[in-house]
Amino acid sequence: MPEPQCNIRHHEFRPSPVVALVGRPNSGKTTLLEQLIPELGRLGYRVGTIKHHVHRFEMDRPGKDTWRHKQAGARVVALSSPTGLGVIREVERDSPVEELVARYFADMDLVITEGYKRSALPKIEVYRRAAHPEPLPADDTWVAVVSDTRISETLPHFDLVEVKELAAFLVRHFITPPPENGISLLVDGVAVPLNQFAGNFLRQAISGMVASLKNCGNAREITIHIRNEQE
Amino acid sequence: MPEPQCNIRHHEFRPSPVVALVGRPNSGKTTLLEQLIPELGRLGYRVGTIKHHVHRFEMDRPGKDTWRHKQAGARVVALSSPTGLGVIREVERDSPVEELVARYFADMDLVITEGYKRSALPKIEVYRRAAHPEPLPADDTWVAVVSDTRISETLPHFDLVEVKELAAFLVRHFITPPPENGISLLVDGVAVPLNQFAGNFLRQAISGMVASLKNCGNAREITIHIRNEQE
Repeated sequence: MPEPQCNIRHHEFRPSPVVALVGRPNSGKTTLLEQLIPELGRLGYRVGTIKHHVHRFEMDRPGKDTWRHKQAGARVVALSSPTGLGVIREVERDSPVEELVARYFADMDLVITEGYKRSALPKIEVYRRAAHPEPLPADDTWVAVVSDTRISETLPHFDLVEVKELAAFLVRHFITPPPENGISLLVDGVAVPLNQFAGNFLRQAISGMVASLKNCGNAREITIHIRNEQE
Repeated sequence: MPEPQCNIRHHEFRPSPVVALVGRPNSGKTTLLEQLIPELGRLGYRVGTIKHHVHRFEMDRPGKDTWRHKQAGARVVALSSPTGLGVIREVERDSPVEELVARYFADMDLVITEGYKRSALPKIEVYRRAAHPEPLPADDTWVAVVSDTRISETLPHFDLVEVKELAAFLVRHFITPPPENGISLLVDGVAVPLNQFAGNFLRQAISGMVASLKNCGNAREITIHIRNEQE
């Protein structure tokens, strides 16, 4: 398939690129992800996923110890093992997807969401005519369509079986090598975009201060959390 | 019950205090937690829990979309809703409990673990003679015992039903009001203890630099992540 052009917009600094898989219910988003994730894995990329759920959910298995902790009122419950880590947290509002990516997906090459169709994320619609008479109303955040029928004159189109081609498209447009040096800044939970000068200044100034501490001479990765309740 | 004295050791800076509930299998750790968590909740404290598991585990429910993402090879899978957030992550080694607490429990008043009996955490043993002939071999990290029988001459003892008394003990010895100003520092995944001078210096210097950025004048909470791959 010839590579179609598309207008991927540049976003403010994010630790990992994010693309949203959207589509009407039962359009095949999860089924596509089940093929796309291993394909990106074969190409050597670490993929994380975020499922957006608008209702109350239970992720844990009833009867397990962690489930019992949560039922008893624990606000955060973690299950930690040598191969996996699970953390379930009570929240008071829907988490902005940018915050989730910054907090939990910093070491991923690509994050793919299921849902978030009303966000500003770049979107790929999954559509099957067999399941719905009409696709979603597209806007200028749409970057491609995966479908059993051609629904856009302008957007790149992939058939439902063109998983390798879709993976190559994501690599080309979304996965870029991570910056060798980088800094992310969250202030009161909101990501603050930094231009190159401010980013380098902060990164080098803080790294220099940390380097002056005992046993912190060659820090490759620094995470700092500050609380200023009163000044 | 008269309040027994015990020798709680001071630990390096941690965002939240941690205590480990230990005991032989089937000694009643989870059952005690199910009563202790709501009791601490009634006293107004936010409790988080960590369950240590030495084998492979599955936290999600088979067949769910997030479970399918993980099966397909996603390294990190999140499920986000307005009331809850779940994150499941593939790891390559057992996570140090200090790192889990720093990363995921910074806003909790107390973290209680189930397990980690070989860690340096302060420990409370749960023991029922009905279940086991002998308690665990205690060391100097033991701070109390909850049991149907008195097993220590020196450690504070609580009966299995003395949940209110145990909660009061935890509040008195572990839950302290959070510092009004604080800073935590992780370097290459390891918490770096900071004395008061270094902590205040770093916190004020970084807060000052951030305050000079646009729209960041009154940051109450600052989180910074730095990657220095090459210098």
